[in-house]
Amino acid sequence: MSKKRNLYLNTIPVEEARAKYLEAVREKITVRHEVIKVTDSLNRITAKAVYARYSSPLFNASAMDGIAVRAADTDNASETSPVTLTEEQYLVVDTGDPIHPPYDAVIMAEDIVETEEGVRITASANSWQHIRTVGEDIVAGEMILPGGHRIRAIDVGVLLSAGILEIEVVRRPEVAIFPTGTEIIEPEDEPEEGSIIESNSRMFENMVTDAGGIGHRFPPIIDDYEQIKAKVSEAVRNYDMVIINAGSSAGTEDYTVHVLRELGEVLVHGVAIKPGKPVILALVNDKPVIGLPGYPVSAYIGFENFVEPVIQMMSGSSGKSHESVQAHISRRLVSSLKHKEYVRVKVGKVGDKFVAAPLARGAGAAMSLVRADGFCVIEQNSEGVEAGDIVDIELYRSKSEIENTVVVIGSHDLILDVMADIMPTRYSSMFVSSTHVGSMGGLMALKRGEAHMSPIHLLEEETGEYNVPYLKRMFSEPMALIKGVQRIQGIMVKKGNPLGITGLADLAAENVRYVNRQRGAGTRVLFDYRLKQLGIPEKSINGYDREMATHMAVAAAVASDGADAGMGVLSAAKAMDLDFIPVGPEEYDFALPRKYLELPHIKAFIDILGSREFAERVEKLGGYGLEHTGEVVII
Amino acid sequence: MSKKRNLYLNTIPVEEARAKYLEAVREKITVRHEVIKVTDSLNRITAKAVYARYSSPLFNASAMDGIAVRAADTDNASETSPVTLTEEQYLVVDTGDPIHPPYDAVIMAEDIVETEEGVRITASANSWQHIRTVGEDIVAGEMILPGGHRIRAIDVGVLLSAGILEIEVVRRPEVAIFPTGTEIIEPEDEPEEGSIIESNSRMFENMVTDAGGIGHRFPPIIDDYEQIKAKVSEAVRNYDMVIINAGSSAGTEDYTVHVLRELGEVLVHGVAIKPGKPVILALVNDKPVIGLPGYPVSAYIGFENFVEPVIQMMSGSSGKSHESVQAHISRRLVSSLKHKEYVRVKVGKVGDKFVAAPLARGAGAAMSLVRADGFCVIEQNSEGVEAGDIVDIELYRSKSEIENTVVVIGSHDLILDVMADIMPTRYSSMFVSSTHVGSMGGLMALKRGEAHMSPIHLLEEETGEYNVPYLKRMFSEPMALIKGVQRIQGIMVKKGNPLGITGLADLAAENVRYVNRQRGAGTRVLFDYRLKQLGIPEKSINGYDREMATHMAVAAAVASDGADAGMGVLSAAKAMDLDFIPVGPEEYDFALPRKYLELPHIKAFIDILGSREFAERVEKLGGYGLEHTGEVVII
Repeated sequence: MSKKRNLYLNTIPVEEARAKYLEAVREKITVRHEVIKVTDSLNRITAKAVYARYSSPLFNASAMDGIAVRAADTDNASETSPVTLTEEQYLVVDTGDPIHPPYDAVIMAEDIVETEEGVRITASANSWQHIRTVGEDIVAGEMILPGGHRIRAIDVGVLLSAGILEIEVVRRPEVAIFPTGTEIIEPEDEPEEGSIIESNSRMFENMVTDAGGIGHRFPPIIDDYEQIKAKVSEAVRNYDMVIINAGSSAGTEDYTVHVLRELGEVLVHGVAIKPGKPVILALVNDKPVIGLPGYPVSAYIGFENFVEPVIQMMSGSSGKSHESVQAHISRRLVSSLKHKEYVRVKVGKVGDKFVAAPLARGAGAAMSLVRADGFCVIEQNSEGVEAGDIVDIELYRSKSEIENTVVVIGSHDLILDVMADIMPTRYSSMFVSSTHVGSMGGLMALKRGEAHMSPIHLLEEETGEYNVPYLKRMFSEPMALIKGVQRIQGIMVKKGNPLGITGLADLAAENVRYVNRQRGAGTRVLFDYRLKQLGIPEKSINGYDREMATHMAVAAAVASDGADAGMGVLSAAKAMDLDFIPVGPEEYDFALPRKYLELPHIKAFIDILGSREFAERVEKLGGYGLEHTGEVVII
Repeated sequence: MSKKRNLYLNTIPVEEARAKYLEAVREKITVRHEVIKVTDSLNRITAKAVYARYSSPLFNASAMDGIAVRAADTDNASETSPVTLTEEQYLVVDTGDPIHPPYDAVIMAEDIVETEEGVRITASANSWQHIRTVGEDIVAGEMILPGGHRIRAIDVGVLLSAGILEIEVVRRPEVAIFPTGTEIIEPEDEPEEGSIIESNSRMFENMVTDAGGIGHRFPPIIDDYEQIKAKVSEAVRNYDMVIINAGSSAGTEDYTVHVLRELGEVLVHGVAIKPGKPVILALVNDKPVIGLPGYPVSAYIGFENFVEPVIQMMSGSSGKSHESVQAHISRRLVSSLKHKEYVRVKVGKVGDKFVAAPLARGAGAAMSLVRADGFCVIEQNSEGVEAGDIVDIELYRSKSEIENTVVVIGSHDLILDVMADIMPTRYSSMFVSSTHVGSMGGLMALKRGEAHMSPIHLLEEETGEYNVPYLKRMFSEPMALIKGVQRIQGIMVKKGNPLGITGLADLAAENVRYVNRQRGAGTRVLFDYRLKQLGIPEKSINGYDREMATHMAVAAAVASDGADAGMGVLSAAKAMDLDFIPVGPEEYDFALPRKYLELPHIKAFIDILGSREFAERVEKLGGYGLEHTGEVVII
């Protein structure tokens, strides 16, 4: 074996690693300040307390439209004996006009009657009534904002009213970001096999912005010790912080840790966190230098846990807090005592409880971060949680958005994407979230109260009827079915059908690599049913045990030559430019408890299913029938 | 009476006004799109669904550092009968390397032993183990983001990985902002009496940014019908929306509504909201034009209720939701059925409950918005809330910040500002919030569980002892006193002491206008005690009934010639450049229930009181003794 590895990373607990590093960083850095215009200061952090230069109001001012008077002149006025003030005794004032001695009160315009002799009043005025006195709002010399405060729109207004034109704020730290790796390419390059499109650095750049810093992304460096060393040495002279991605692990080409050991001090290499273990926390030239792992989810979690607190320390910001919510976890999650684990979850509000459904746990699954609504954090000292347990979820979508989201769990179809797309544009602040676990999995989730509805396509073998028999059999509570689409199931094969497959019988041939759907998927039920009809034994299918979770995943496996054939719907075959051998039509509908039909977001969902826009979008996907779409069947 | 008024505004309920206006605006506007680089798209809103161009991974890739093998070659390997693979049977791979046929599995580096003959394994490998298959994360053609989605840092990364370099987003609406008013001056101008520093437009500019638009602030227009008309006519041709501030009321110089009636259609003039009633909602040249009132709080609330939803509609954003919290309201709030009222509150967490203390309700009190943590909204159909009621508070500080805030209610002193300033810079994410209701008011709040501590300076006449006797008498639960500062009380008079005041006895002179502190304030207790000692009757003091809430407010009244003398502390006199006639020293301490001494933010508070930084800052204010500062006395 020719390549050299460095298999051992120390793994210390997250909190310990962070505390150790932040303490070391705090000793080295100085938070720097700059003076900027108040009009440019939105979201900046004050460096120190700001005191008012002027009072507000600047002078005694009328708080009303009306007349300024001497209170003493009005003492005897009442309903029964009105007093008439002559022109010398009052002054017409608008709101904000200055009030001078001898006037010491204001009477509202509504409370006076103009007469030929002057102005008649029917009540006495207390001295200083309806007058805003000097400094009533702000007193010169008073503190307006403390240090460490994030400046808001209202603060800008008040600062200017108080005569403050410039303000001392914390300088935003400048962060150099270096992507590394011989195999990575820029997003604009044409990818070849083996290439990885470099995108973490762009994610970091934006995360730096969110954290209060300024990100500077550099072109990728190849995996070369000297080149990495040269770039880092230069960057620690010109920037406040450096991020290197990736090469932070212990692989044969992971030079980062060796470079940082030569240039400075590595305080931590390897943290007990999953995903995200291979983190490097170092100081070079008194500047924080952090190596983050290459998998997008690891990179994200590493950034949140280690880079963000450093930037916050340097930017004086107290950090954004994630909203959190208590939710019932839908599946058992086993986690090791070896690490703290961040499990991405989708969160929904079904009935009166929040439910959290775990997503893919792989570190490479960046899309799972996009799809997720938050993290379920399993502490290092915990072995996991049981299904139904109440857990704390750190949200990164707002709670109100989640409360207005239709939670869909069940069989996958591309029309779910179309629904998710149309919903928020047609109904402001309403959303569709879908998780793909197959038809039976969906119905089980519905039974457990984890979803509003389940898209299903389940054939009853005896009657040939779709969906309705399953609902009657499985549920005791009153149910309904929202009719979805008719769609064509078939065999997806490579463009041009090189193996000449004509039907299910051909799948039993030795040279055909099949890829299957998971147990409980409607497509799997159909496949098994047809195999039985044709008398084809499961084990004659090469790849029967290789299961994938969606039509698109099957289509992608076929398109990429990972397999020769798989069963799925026409729209998936079309999307991946595959040939398609039809097997038969089926009904893809939405099952739900009848009580949810009255919810506003469910009503919106039904409305969109029946809309012209939906019909046109589905038409383009191809292979769908819309005869009864949007109709509600009471079971 | 020479000026002409237009006294009557219609006032319709907030929700009705907003719905009516948004419906009219929706009919006229078209949401416009633009194509931008993905790398510049943070926080922009997608115009429509985005689909992946490439799958991710792009090829079957190793998920581990290790060796690629044929699963079939490993079938018989076990602990007891290891299998050795020769060099032709495996390939060393790093994470991310492509896996080609005939290899169909990866074994982790940790699970192999290198020998002279090759690589020894002690377990069989399942086919496809440790391989990330094509499209495992993202399948080409799959929807990545729906329309109407706010782009986050992670989305930028995933879009680029999926081969998306440019993205169609909603164009940000361009909003013209016109300050109007003959009396207003720019912040950089030197103010004279009668001038009002124009700052609302700068607040709006930043609120437009927050709402997802681009603000363009124009120089002030004087109150002149033709000038306002000319500017608005031009702006509706070049901008998506126009805001006019102020002149939206019915005063003698409020031209806005007349101009808008001539140029277009005024849909609403006057809304049942407090503060903020004189709002104008109009359409000119099919563009939304909104007139907002001039008082800063009215302007802010008008913007939030009417401008923000229009910008959100035009920018496709679903709007930020305020976090909310249920809190016990500390005072009775009476509100009229005539309007929906927004009461600013300070919110704290004391013990296990949130408490909300109402702030000044005046529309001119911009500082109350800066000091506030949120709004208590009293609906139009409600007459108010009783003290102790649980109310919903719309927060605009984060809940976690509030949970880490020391709630101080009681007597005012400038050292509270110093504490509030030092706290977040020394202890990240910890804050001090103070409300000034006088010593006795503070102790009552403490008794009701609304504060962590009360700053007090209460003299017991019989013994001459400060503070301790009051705690013993008033509280049954175990209490403590954190020693604060010794300070000098005295009479503040104008610079040069023009009336030649030498002591309290001189305040009874007819020509001396005195300004008093409110009942329950320690300073008032002291003043009354000294008057009694000297045998001076209250009514001989001209201005005895004119009460102000803080030392600084009294100082400002004297400095601005609103009064000739007032009692207060040396630091306030110094801050306003007044002369000071000492009356005597007093003890200003912090009373708190003993159980709070162990809270982390209370410990931080005590630590700062005893710090060198605090001592230096207080030294500069002048007039304080720090002999026992920070010591804890158990009562």
